Amino acid sequence: MKILLIGASGTVGSAVDKELSARHEIIRIGRTRGDFQVDISDSASIRALFGKTGKFDALVCAAGNVTFAPLAEMDAQSFALGLQDKLMGQVNLLLIGREFANDGASFTFTSGVLSHDPIRSGASAALVNGALDSFVRAAAIELPRGMRVNSVSPTVLVEAMGSYAPYFRGYKPVAGADVGLAYAKSVEGLQTGQTFHVG
Amino acid sequence: MKILLIGASGTVGSAVDKELSARHEIIRIGRTRGDFQVDISDSASIRALFGKTGKFDALVCAAGNVTFAPLAEMDAQSFALGLQDKLMGQVNLLLIGREFANDGASFTFTSGVLSHDPIRSGASAALVNGALDSFVRAAAIELPRGMRVNSVSPTVLVEAMGSYAPYFRGYKPVAGADVGLAYAKSVEGLQTGQTFHVG
Repeated sequence: MKILLIGASGTVGSAVDKELSARHEIIRIGRTRGDFQVDISDSASIRALFGKTGKFDALVCAAGNVTFAPLAEMDAQSFALGLQDKLMGQVNLLLIGREFANDGASFTFTSGVLSHDPIRSGASAALVNGALDSFVRAAAIELPRGMRVNSVSPTVLVEAMGSYAPYFRGYKPVAGADVGLAYAKSVEGLQTGQTFHVG
Repeated sequence: MKILLIGASGTVGSAVDKELSARHEIIRIGRTRGDFQVDISDSASIRALFGKTGKFDALVCAAGNVTFAPLAEMDAQSFALGLQDKLMGQVNLLLIGREFANDGASFTFTSGVLSHDPIRSGASAALVNGALDSFVRAAAIELPRGMRVNSVSPTVLVEAMGSYAPYFRGYKPVAGADVGLAYAKSVEGLQTGQTFHVG
């Protein structure tokens, strides 16, 4: 399969790369690094990306920014980044990318544990993750040509605990390799409209 | 209790009104009708509303618009209404309204069944409903002064089947009175961070 991997150099993306690259052609995409670059918060940038990559069999997005801030300090603007970047960025990868997707292609997006197991300062992340998990469930039933869409919802990764540990006290981190497996299940399996929880 | 009921004249709002009005003071708010008017998609309109209502003990929102359209016809713009109105409208009712909320006040928002039991043309509704259910779960743990926030996630109402039936074939509708009970549980109970499913 020809797989577009967005966020390829990140903690999750690296784990996906390691899991899938032995069996598939991986096109590595980042905001600044990789074979191609994209800003997923910008529809024009997404369209330009597909113009360069051409058709594909699977798209995995392991990228997306949200604002972390105490709820007491948040206003509507604090939610704008998450809505525009992690949420609508991934939604737009499907809305635009489907034109470039081969029959039977899959989209695999990244949500996360905070939708249902929240932390301090995580209100925007929770909102975005919950939105993504419900979006894939709904979008899956309307996709034509055997196309599929799932999300992977990992808890914090072992490899990210160096910087994230203070925010995730009491959370049992999961190995990146285990997270990579969930993406393989989505890409190489046949399920659609699912959220694969890891950890 | 002094209860602000937004969307008071709608199908859900009427059911909430009927359940709560015998025991509480209901301030009825609509886009064009009611004691006061508000456009929840506009932060300035929300702030102006609270300037008129003053302090309150509970806020119930049974309003919110989303775009229903086949996924094949949707682009990013098709999701804008749901994000700005039903989603951020309700989020902003909390972000702004908390300044006017008495100690121990509750916020009760409306999501819906489509987050997990989707229909054709319901991708934006699903996304918004899932976002709201996760937002209340996360926001609840950061609210000060005993404030609470929940969502009610009803299936289609018996009273709405006149117009909605073609979109909800196979769904067992629930009586408005039963939906009203879920709002009473949120307003008059002590739970927080919960989604009360009805139907």
